This record gives sequence, C-alpha cells and structure tokens, in this order.
Amino acid sequence: MMAGTTREDLIELLQDWSYAAARMTQGLDVSASGAVGGSPEAPPDDTGEALGLAANGLTITFGVGPTLFTAADGTDRYGLADRRPALLTALPAFLGDDLEPDHTGGDLCIQACADDPQVAVHAIRNLSRIAFGRARLRWSQLGFGKTSKTTADQATPRNLFGFKDGTANILADDQAALDQHVWVGDGDEPAWLIGGSYLVARKIAMLIETWDRVRLSEQERITGRDKAHGAPLSGGQEQTAPDFSAVGTTGQPAIDARSHVRLAHPGLNKGIRILRRGYNYVDGNTDLGRLDAGLFFLAYQRSPAQFIALQRALSRDLLNEYIRHVGSGLWAIPPGAEEGSYVGAGLFA
Amino acid sequence: MMAGTTREDLIELLQDWSYAAARMTQGLDVSASGAVGGSPEAPPDDTGEALGLAANGLTITFGVGPTLFTAADGTDRYGLADRRPALLTALPAFLGDDLEPDHTGGDLCIQACADDPQVAVHAIRNLSRIAFGRARLRWSQLGFGKTSKTTADQATPRNLFGFKDGTANILADDQAALDQHVWVGDGDEPAWLIGGSYLVARKIAMLIETWDRVRLSEQERITGRDKAHGAPLSGGQEQTAPDFSAVGTTGQPAIDARSHVRLAHPGLNKGIRILRRGYNYVDGNTDLGRLDAGLFFLAYQRSPAQFIALQRALSRDLLNEYIRHVGSGLWAIPPGAEEGSYVGAGLFA
Ligand code: HEM
Ligand code: HEM
Repeated sequence: MMAGTTREDLIELLQDWSYAAARMTQGLDVSASGAVGGSPEAPPDDTGEALGLAANGLTITFGVGPTLFTAADGTDRYGLADRRPALLTALPAFLGDDLEPDHTGGDLCIQACADDPQVAVHAIRNLSRIAFGRARLRWSQLGFGKTSKTTADQATPRNLFGFKDGTANILADDQAALDQHVWVGDGDEPAWLIGGSYLVARKIAMLIETWDRVRLSEQERITGRDKAHGAPLSGGQEQTAPDFSAVGTTGQPAIDARSHVRLAHPGLNKGIRILRRGYNYVDGNTDLGRLDAGLFFLAYQRSPAQFIALQRALSRDLLNEYIRHVGSGLWAIPPGAEEGSYVGAGLFA
Repeated sequence: MMAGTTREDLIELLQDWSYAAARMTQGLDVSASGAVGGSPEAPPDDTGEALGLAANGLTITFGVGPTLFTAADGTDRYGLADRRPALLTALPAFLGDDLEPDHTGGDLCIQACADDPQVAVHAIRNLSRIAFGRARLRWSQLGFGKTSKTTADQATPRNLFGFKDGTANILADDQAALDQHVWVGDGDEPAWLIGGSYLVARKIAMLIETWDRVRLSEQERITGRDKAHGAPLSGGQEQTAPDFSAVGTTGQPAIDARSHVRLAHPGLNKGIRILRRGYNYVDGNTDLGRLDAGLFFLAYQRSPAQFIALQRALSRDLLNEYIRHVGSGLWAIPPGAEEGSYVGAGLFA
C-alpha cells in the first residue's frame, strides 16, 4: 500500500480487484469499456495484450500480509490491528537465509496462473494498474512449468535439478487432506479466514552449475529418491512409501538421514503436510555466466506453523549446499468472494 | 568464447552443439547416456528437467558474431579473419540507443524456441553446459508469446502495448519473400552462408505504465493502425494495404507521417522487408514498482543493411517516446548442418 491511503481506499481497491479478477478469469477485459476503450479520448481501461485470447485457465488469488494489519513502524493504518489473525506474523529467520529485501514481504499479494504466460502477465499488469495511487508493485516473479503435481492423472513435473517434484504432494482432489492440512477450517481463528489458507512464498536460487557437476548417486542421496522414476531409495516405484529403516548395500540407511525427502517427510514431522505449488524460474544469468534460476516455492497450509516446522527440520538438509533462499513472503488468503461481495470483505465486517 | 580456446576447440564445440541439438529437437536427451547418466559415479550427461517431456516443437538456431572473426582487440583467435562475411560488422550506433554492455554482443548465439518453456530452458542450459571451458554465457533472455505472426492461419498475436504485431510480417510459407528478403542466396557472399541468414536482436524496454496512460486515439496515431483489429488508419480490415495518401476528417494524413507503421513500411524504404520473430519479455520490476518489460525484437534478413536502414528510418518514430533499446546483437546464421556434418562447418572448409 502507498503512504496516505485510507481504510476506504483499501476497501475500494479490493472491490476493484475482485471485479476485474472475476471478469478476467472469464476471459473478458478488466472493465466493460474494454481493451479498446469507451472513448478514443481516454486511455483504454484494459491494456489489450490478452484481447482475442481465451481465459486459458486463469486463476487469480489475493493475499493479505502481516504488515497490512500493523505497519513496520507499528502504525495501524487501516484500523485492522485487532483483526490480524494471531498466526499471521512475519516468518522467523531461518538458518542460511540470504533474503533480499527487494524480494521479500508485501502488504498484499496476487498470484495469477494460466496456461499462457501472456494471460497471466496481462492479469498482474492490469491489477497493478488498477491499484495506481493506492498500492504499488514491490516485487514480482514470473515462473513456468509448475513443479508440483497437484492432480493424480498428471505426470509428475520436474524441477531444475532434474528430479520429479510433487510425488508426495497433497493432490487437488484429496478433499480430506486439503481439509486437514490446507484450508483454514471450523474452530480456527479468525472467522473471516475460514475456507481460506496461508501462502508462503520462498524464492529459492538453485546453484545449477554446481549441481550439474555432482555425480548421479550423490544427487540421489541428497534427494532421497532416484532420478529416473522418483522412487524412494528404499525401493519400489514412484508411489511406494519410503522406508526410512531400510538398509542399503553398504550397511548405511538406504535413504540418507539428511536427505531432503526424509527431513521433509510427515512421518518425522508430526504428520505435517503442506500443498506445494511452486514454479521454476529463470531470471537471465549472473555476471559469472551462470543461470540465475531456481524454484519459486509456493506452499498453501492451514497454519504458517506447518511451513516453519518443515523449514526448521530442513536446516540439516544435504540440499542446502546447492540452494539459497533469496526471497520470502507470508500472506493470509481469504476465501473467494461471495456473490455480490469482494475478496477480503470479511476483514472489514 | 573463453580466453585460451583454439580453433580446434571452437570446431569441437560446434560439433558437440550440433549433435546435442539434433538429439534434443527429436525429444531425446543431449547424449545417449541420458538424463540419468551412464554411471552412478559420474554426473549425468543431461540435466534431466525435460525427461518425459516431448520435443514440444523445439527449434535450435546457432549464430556467429563479428567478434568471433576478429576480437575486440583485433586479434584473429581462430584463424577466421579472412572468412568474415563483409556484411558482418558491429551494428552502428543508433539515435536513442541506451545499450547495456551486459545485454549486447556475443561471439556466438543460440536461439531455442518451444511450446513449453521448460523445454527451451533445458536446451539453453544443456548447450551452455556443453560449452564448459570453451565458451560461457554472456547474456540470455527468456521471452513468451511470440509477437509476430509467421503463418497465414495464425491469429496475429499482440505485443505488450496491446497492438497486433505481425500483420505485415513475412509469413513462413511465403517462399518468394523469404528468398528475396531473408535467406542469403545465390550470388551473395560468402558461400558458406548461402541458405542462412542474419539475425538482429534488440532488447527493447517498453515504458508500459507511461503508454497505459496515453489515450486510445493517440496510441493508434503513434502506431498507424487501430487497436481493436489492427487495420491501417486509412481504413479497411487488418490485411488492407495502408494508404499513406489518405486524408482524415481533420484534413491531416489519416496515417501520421511519423507513425511506426508508415516509417517502417517497405513503400517508403526502397521495398525493404525483414522477418520479425520477436517475443514479449518481463524481467520482474524496477525499483519504482514498474514492470521491467518489453519486446525482445528478433529479425532475420538477407543483409544487416535491411535492419540498419529501417532502424534509421525509425529515428523519427513517435513510438520512441515509449521505448528504449537496451540490448543488441548481430549474428550470421549458417544454414542447418548437412547429414553427418555440423552447423558452421563451411566456415572452416
Ligand atoms: C529448491 C528447493 C527444493 C527442491 C529442489 C525440492 C525438491 C523436492 C523433491 C525432488 C522432492 C521429492 C518428490 C516429492 O515428493 O515432491 C521433495 C519433496 C518434498 N519437499 Fe521439497 N524441495 C525444495 C524445497 C522445499 C522446501 C523449502 C520445503 C518446505 C519447507 C519442501 C518440502 C517438501 C516436502 C514436504 C516434500 C514431501 C516429502 C514427503 O512427504 O516425502 N521442499 N522436494
Ligand atoms: C517495442 C518496439 C516495437 C513495437 C511495439 C512495434 C510494433 C509494431 C506494430 C504494432 C506494427 C504493426 C503491425 C505489423 O505489421 O506487425 C509493426 C510493424 C512493423 N514494425 Fe515494429 N515495433 C517495434 C519495433 C520495431 C523495430 C525495431 C523495427 C525494425 C527496425 C520494426 C519494424 C517493423 C516493420 C518492418 C513493420 C511492418 C511495417 C509494414 O510493412 O507495414 N519494428 N511494429
């Protein structure tokens, strides 16, 4: 949000965004006056680059960050301090964090996903534009090739380390797991967030060239799964449950105690699960001629505590030598707008 | 190329690239040992993230820049100085150029295009990796949503200013125009480039937020075409030829004399045409919260003189207030490798 904006400005912004999002996800322009404009003497309401393209599966998700409720300097700009979900506080610092302020935090967030990047970019651009004078873009990230499998009939996609990513993810059709681990549910606080979730974003740079020089057996040991099929190193197929007590040919555990999969596994984390929906990213290259690339890790969970516990467990992860967390954010994701209302209306009720 | 490499290293690099490119465009790993590797004790030959993905229309194009023949310091590192095409010299400076050295030039270039960005990124990454110790990545650019129509049955795509881009482009099936304007042909020099072309790349930042505040009639005046359909402002449909002598209601020319389309039109440029194959790009955002976005302009032509003439004609372009050329490159594109040979073999014959 920008300095000087009022509670009314914020409400109007969320209303304007909800209206525009509802239109765009139907493949329409942001406003009824359209991409070409109502009058030749005014700028068009819609920037136009998605004109003629269908919705392409566009989904738009809005989130509210801890600083919306209480600004960094402690002020309660929008009369929301007492509406802050108790769980919505800045993420703690984690061992190895190398966060850039330019890719961290934000009062509000927007996630736009579509099968065509032109459609997703169009959505972010027009929503930013609608925010003019009220909020401005703090940071943004373009990603591609969803890393995590989210439905059972989807082949598991691969991350930029070449491994299947999403094998043990919560699937979009696993209603029981979603209710237990992802959606804020009955009995949770606050009431306006019920049916919503918490989104953690971590921009994780991957040291691609270093990884590419690691021998296959070591890449697999670090991950805890085989590269070709994604099967746990304890044996079986991709969907076989890992057996952390299995012993390998050398007498060592078949799945290394510090492998990523073991440290992240619910069995060793009090049953904790999260819904991972990350994307690969490439931001050009570094001065050294290395790809500036990695995983834009996005996870939805019922409580930020789930991510925090897992990320702490991963402090011993063998993978850490090859990755660097460079950006971070946490937002509460209100449920979708009710008919005739807007996203986040419950916040002001 | 890296310091200390020899002519033999360069030849081997082009051979290795040709082999890997031939495999990848068929949807195979870069090497027969594959994404998983021949031995668990060695790094896999292929980085693996495209394993299980089809070729997705992948095409890979290689180019050689002026500095490959004569280095910036004048040295002839590869015994190629006398093989340099006379037309392959650094592009001249143009009025308004704001080029960043980090996004300009290069001894060699690779263009990878695919329907799935994961496949295109995989190709660039693996070809960079194969170059290890011989060449290193100087700059790279990820783009999306081809801006220019290249076949007749394709709806014309739109650039980030929301206008149809590619209406008057040379189409991929217009063999006569390709032979006349794009392919280096019989009678051209040097012989090894016949059947190839020259590629100009310009990274053109677009001042999106400024443009978005311009009224529709002015956006159309600057472009010379209408926004909704892409028809010339002299009237008709998208494919109607522009009539630069037509007069508008105010007595002024219907198509402004300084509009982009008029200044770039072959009729006013001695019949010059080029094959445009640009992509939109978004590189995150600037410190001011503006999208760092634009057009990665790519054009193929029989001679760099075609681009130079057009870019000079465009020095008076009304569009210039809204764009900034920030990167640039010129490469000769040898024809595809003959069976059993490699791309660029003719250079060394
Ligand atoms: C660049 C960084 C990362 C890479 C390359 C990566 C890669 C992987 C891979 C290959 C798997 C195995 C296949 C699967 O079940 O999806 C996996 C599983 C998993 N990862 Fe990550 N991951 C990264 C970061 C994280 C982070 C930051 C977290 C959370 C704090 C996390 C949580 C998990 C969880 C919960 C699983 C499933 C474990 C199981 O149930 O067996 N990952 N990851
Ligand atoms: C960000 C920069 C640019 C934008 C937004 C842009 C946009 C457009 C648009 C909307 C058209 C009309 C539709 C069409 O025929 O494709 C067009 C035509 C054209 N542009 Fe550009 N263009 C840009 C840069 C350039 C540059 C650098 C050149 C070459 C030096 C160029 C050469 C042409 C040519 C040759 C035509 C066709 C003109 C005709 O035959 O009528 N453009 N451009």
